[in-house]
Amino acid sequence: MQGAVLLAAQPLRVKLLGSNNSSTGNPSATAGAGNPSLMAAAGPKWAQKTVTLPPHRRGCHLITPKIMKEIGNDLSEFKCGLAHIFLQHTSASLTINENYDSDVRSDTETFLNNIVPEGTSAPWKHTLEGPDDMPAHIKSSMFGCALTVPITNGKFNMGTWQGIWLCEHRDHPTARNIVVTLNGI
Amino acid sequence: MQGAVLLAAQPLRVKLLGSNNSSTGNPSATAGAGNPSLMAAAGPKWAQKTVTLPPHRRGCHLITPKIMKEIGNDLSEFKCGLAHIFLQHTSASLTINENYDSDVRSDTETFLNNIVPEGTSAPWKHTLEGPDDMPAHIKSSMFGCALTVPITNGKFNMGTWQGIWLCEHRDHPTARNIVVTLNGI
Amino acid sequence: MQGAVLLAAQPLRVKLLGSNNSSTGNPSATAGAGNPSLMAAAGPKWAQKTVTLPPHRRGCHLITPKIMKEIGNDLSEFKCGLAHIFLQHTSASLTINENYDSDVRSDTETFLNNIVPEGTSAPWKHTLEGPDDMPAHIKSSMFGCALTVPITNGKFNMGTWQGIWLCEHRDHPTARNIVVTLNGI
Repeated sequence: MQGAVLLAAQPLRVKLLGSNNSSTGNPSATAGAGNPSLMAAAGPKWAQKTVTLPPHRRGCHLITPKIMKEIGNDLSEFKCGLAHIFLQHTSASLTINENYDSDVRSDTETFLNNIVPEGTSAPWKHTLEGPDDMPAHIKSSMFGCALTVPITNGKFNMGTWQGIWLCEHRDHPTARNIVVTLNGI
Repeated sequence: MQGAVLLAAQPLRVKLLGSNNSSTGNPSATAGAGNPSLMAAAGPKWAQKTVTLPPHRRGCHLITPKIMKEIGNDLSEFKCGLAHIFLQHTSASLTINENYDSDVRSDTETFLNNIVPEGTSAPWKHTLEGPDDMPAHIKSSMFGCALTVPITNGKFNMGTWQGIWLCEHRDHPTARNIVVTLNGI
Repeated sequence: MQGAVLLAAQPLRVKLLGSNNSSTGNPSATAGAGNPSLMAAAGPKWAQKTVTLPPHRRGCHLITPKIMKEIGNDLSEFKCGLAHIFLQHTSASLTINENYDSDVRSDTETFLNNIVPEGTSAPWKHTLEGPDDMPAHIKSSMFGCALTVPITNGKFNMGTWQGIWLCEHRDHPTARNIVVTLNGI
């Protein structure tokens, strides 16, 4: 991270959300189930960056490491917040799913191809950009082009098995731009 | 809510978004269609909590009351903001849909089961965790694992018939964790 | 925009997210791929407005111009932020997809109608409100009722070909309310 600009740090109102079975706050606790989580006071921060992913072949790809490489340093400065990840394209998609077995990703690609007709039997009017184009648009709306992930103690607060997927729906892949916006304290 | 920590209250810039047919602001107005809504000045606030839902059987379940029970007190302190609700799992999903007739929920479960093949005729490679596991992953990406809801005057600003659903896609249900993040003024 | 209330402007912490191939910040740069983007210091701002869209016939409709007409002036005051767009209904949906060829929108409507059974052959129990009602609920959860779009330099930071669609899933269209929440600096 170059050129960090810290114009001012300032107090702001933060809340300790207690659990039902605890009556005392624990400043060092993580936001785990049933544990209170005290967020350190700091000025509200915004950060935004466009990340360009290299071309990926048609299918579903785990991109959590790539995203973390680009924003991990910035992320580490947020105690509590939200990360918004926005794909600027209409023929690919972002989703959160299993991060371990690559068969889950190829099975998901199989599902998408089975559910959205492609080729001569498909009913599409929009065919100028190739037989895979209209199916790609539909798949993009099915999974969506944006994700919002909670930030806790400098990290994405996802489940153990969750990862961020880029789903490329075109046959001839191209680089894809993602706008990442971080907001928090 | 135990242990609220109010480090400082501070002014910040807020905006009155006027409607086309009104030229005066009304501080007590709700953000209804065509009505201007003036948000009270207060320091920006963040709150975050992990809520554990007990096991729910396979199918779609209305969980708005459960969420409100856990965060309602905190929510009431936000005049304007956003609530982010994040499910930390890849074989269940969150969606917003009808909150009245339970038939809508069971019909939606019927749809999901009809659209995603399961069992011996299914083409999945990922079958180690049971025949319902890969279909569960697919359904999770179809509906998604996260919701963002506007907050207005201390409440979720949803439509009259909208509710938050937890859709459990596994046959053997388990407890599910949800990270709720509130941000606003 | 009537009645803007500027209670105070205040410094806050902002971050310059540098690219890998640049070591100097450029305050006037856009958040383009590989370019650093310095966000101007200003107080955090929240704005919220309910926009009522007139009835649209069943199908997919590009509504970016309508949204911009309602919030464009306010949007222009945000250097960096997020726009949340929330549809308060369970039988219509919002999605981001192609903004140019209307065939993409009609093909998407064709897909939705092919994938969700309607009429006498459909397995739905919830039929009191007409044969198009239960399919409308399902389509609403497939595409979702909410979008979050990054704001950069006073504008939606979407891709060249991206637009916001309202998908009306009922046969007899009605006016639809959308709650727009802007947050940023």
